[in-house]
Amino acid sequence: MDSTPFVNRHLDIPLYQQLYQFFKENMHAGRIQKGTKLPSKRLLAAQLSISQTTVERAFEQLAAEGYLLSKPRSGWFADYDGGDFVHSEPAASPLKNPHRQETEPMIDFHFGHVDPAHFPFSAWRKSTVHRLDQDGHTLYRPGDVLGELELRTLIADHLYQSRGVRCSPDQVVIGAGSPVLIHMLCHIFRPYAAIGFEDPGSSRSRALFEVNHLQVLPISVDDEGICMQDIQQKQPRLLYVTPSHQFPLGTIMSINRRMQLLKWAAAQEAFIIEDDYDGEFRYSGQPIPSLQGLDQHNRVIYMGTFSKSLLPSLRISYMILPPHLLEKGREIMSLYKQTVSSHSQLTLAEFMRNGEWQKHLNRMRKLYKRKRALLLEVIESTLGTRVKIRGGNSGLHLLLDVDSSFNEEELIEKAKEQGVKIYPASVFYQNQPPERTVLIGFAGVSEEHIREGIKKLKAAWDL
Amino acid sequence: MDSTPFVNRHLDIPLYQQLYQFFKENMHAGRIQKGTKLPSKRLLAAQLSISQTTVERAFEQLAAEGYLLSKPRSGWFADYDGGDFVHSEPAASPLKNPHRQETEPMIDFHFGHVDPAHFPFSAWRKSTVHRLDQDGHTLYRPGDVLGELELRTLIADHLYQSRGVRCSPDQVVIGAGSPVLIHMLCHIFRPYAAIGFEDPGSSRSRALFEVNHLQVLPISVDDEGICMQDIQQKQPRLLYVTPSHQFPLGTIMSINRRMQLLKWAAAQEAFIIEDDYDGEFRYSGQPIPSLQGLDQHNRVIYMGTFSKSLLPSLRISYMILPPHLLEKGREIMSLYKQTVSSHSQLTLAEFMRNGEWQKHLNRMRKLYKRKRALLLEVIESTLGTRVKIRGGNSGLHLLLDVDSSFNEEELIEKAKEQGVKIYPASVFYQNQPPERTVLIGFAGVSEEHIREGIKKLKAAWDL
Repeated sequence: MDSTPFVNRHLDIPLYQQLYQFFKENMHAGRIQKGTKLPSKRLLAAQLSISQTTVERAFEQLAAEGYLLSKPRSGWFADYDGGDFVHSEPAASPLKNPHRQETEPMIDFHFGHVDPAHFPFSAWRKSTVHRLDQDGHTLYRPGDVLGELELRTLIADHLYQSRGVRCSPDQVVIGAGSPVLIHMLCHIFRPYAAIGFEDPGSSRSRALFEVNHLQVLPISVDDEGICMQDIQQKQPRLLYVTPSHQFPLGTIMSINRRMQLLKWAAAQEAFIIEDDYDGEFRYSGQPIPSLQGLDQHNRVIYMGTFSKSLLPSLRISYMILPPHLLEKGREIMSLYKQTVSSHSQLTLAEFMRNGEWQKHLNRMRKLYKRKRALLLEVIESTLGTRVKIRGGNSGLHLLLDVDSSFNEEELIEKAKEQGVKIYPASVFYQNQPPERTVLIGFAGVSEEHIREGIKKLKAAWDL
Repeated sequence: MDSTPFVNRHLDIPLYQQLYQFFKENMHAGRIQKGTKLPSKRLLAAQLSISQTTVERAFEQLAAEGYLLSKPRSGWFADYDGGDFVHSEPAASPLKNPHRQETEPMIDFHFGHVDPAHFPFSAWRKSTVHRLDQDGHTLYRPGDVLGELELRTLIADHLYQSRGVRCSPDQVVIGAGSPVLIHMLCHIFRPYAAIGFEDPGSSRSRALFEVNHLQVLPISVDDEGICMQDIQQKQPRLLYVTPSHQFPLGTIMSINRRMQLLKWAAAQEAFIIEDDYDGEFRYSGQPIPSLQGLDQHNRVIYMGTFSKSLLPSLRISYMILPPHLLEKGREIMSLYKQTVSSHSQLTLAEFMRNGEWQKHLNRMRKLYKRKRALLLEVIESTLGTRVKIRGGNSGLHLLLDVDSSFNEEELIEKAKEQGVKIYPASVFYQNQPPERTVLIGFAGVSEEHIREGIKKLKAAWDL
């Protein structure tokens, strides 16, 4: 114990009682361990400008209750055994993270997970240490508010190569997760601006626009992507779409629809937010360039993330602003400062520059392609014609329409009873939610568990 | 070059011209280096489903302009020398961070800087690597939205010991910088709620409340802190204060004022945001506990940061929510997810647990105390009675009222001409800004530069 207790003459609580409370709480919290010698009455009285009698009264009360022990000629010692929660071992705390508390061996088809067995730790570790050693001196200052230029340059380069995105590094804005960047975007636009939003669509992004005071208009989605007719009718000036892999339907927006959308945006001077949340994961067919790359009028804001292509816990996302939004963007970012630590950014830059990220991406693309094929195959052979698969050509999840007398909630509950976690599709709809459709992510599930999980679904649903 | 060019039949641009543009841009950007062999016409035509004539036409145009060279029996080769900006060397980019572009050897008395010479890199590096090795498996999943419990427990413990803050770890919320946390707080309160704000006060925090739709009411500040009379008159339900070291005045809020404030908050059911932005740096006198620690009615939201006590580029801040705001807080945080990477949090936890942070803090406190004493001494001996020092008892900056015929802007400009950067105080005022007061931060300036800088101020100001 290296701190002086606080006593406060302005409280209605007697000083001896405040002192009593202070020591008692510290012992309960494990901050003063059994056997610790307490400061002498004389010292404590001097430090706190209170009388020795007051200290004595507090100590005697504590001793009476068994918290303290007086040793003749030696002083007062803590005698309370063990804190109520032990600071050095957080796993034992009653307040621990519920996320990690789960001990059941559930097979979890969460659509936000990634494969946990293939992250190139030693390469990542090398980049981490290298940039700490090399750039130590730069870490004392807040970096560029938009992000480290080195990383922004590498991202611009990667996006051009792999997604056809055309931008200079100064259009790239780094942020601690896509929600943070969506929030920054909301500051760029006028409050209560109407934003057209895919229905169904990401419930999280929708909620983010809503809490940040945009007016969200649901726009229906068909087989080719977001519906032009609905856009023309509702006339938003801002639009949020997921053209590479519609969330949650999995549709890839057709090139025709893309061109119509861009034409509309140019004519209306509207902006399109293109969320390419898992654009790295296409398994077949000719690459379809991003909307941003097709756009000739600077109407597209492109968003991407390293959460799926690297690690969700890294919290690094980015967006590409059109040139005429840059000034406003920099102003907003200056207010918040950069939200990702310089060192994390430089580590990622190093990892990308060394080709490690591309290697990892290629490896994961292969792995996910195999998992996806297995999942499709197991679903077909196990669940047969009783389910319809949607959106399985790209990305890391698919939808299952289930032919069952159970409703969505029951389908999920029955699966859970068998130890399988699947997710509802209805939550992503604003209008006409489906009645028995579930979302299945496969990236974070092992091949063995994919087989086992689907078999359990068959049993759970009596198919 | 490992990507196939995109061609788009829906554009009005001829295909050969799109192809021409693609290669030209790639060479300008340095992505295709001089000497690189291009894919054969046959291969490219097949990949893009276009005719070989189209490819040939593009190649010949490029050759005519000197971008390509045809070698008989061998194929086409890039012949353009050097990209317009070189990706592997961002320092050479024309777009580089203006912050780091500065080459003049300015003496910068910025109030947000920290001492760059004493960070315990090897201990930090050890924590970094240790937690990467130990916790690799936990990094695949997004952690607790409020932050890693291990870090939150250590923060709660530290705040109790050093600032008298009373909270359980589940009240601690981690965020990527105080601005992010202020933004989260704004979501907790009703839009357009009136917030009383110290005048003068942090212009950044004020702007953050404003852009996040709170109504900011300036409340005057006297020698004891924020003025109760002004609060009672304007009746905000939310109040933002910096009691440990008023920003920018440097006043320490008196215990009387603290108790009045808490009584007011309890009676009005108002909330007080206590921003303890540099509370670790007190150099003398008895410790004054935080408002939060004195509060018996859960009306205080306490905020702190590691930007000053560790590294600004780390982007780790925290706030302590009263228990009855926790549910709403968790809801908001769930929407944004945790904004600091798990690994950064665990590294900091390790660093704290090993006592390294406390050691660093003690060392810095001593160092800053010495710098502060030197600064005060040099100001007194050099500038004498022509200046009045305010707020020099705590924290990392002070104010100078200058007796001069120059106004604030001129004082700063004259200093700059001598190679010394100081900062205006007027920008922090909403009412009655002072006319010739400047802000001087000393944490990031060496002792030698403190001496030199103040001497230069004397010359700059003709004192």
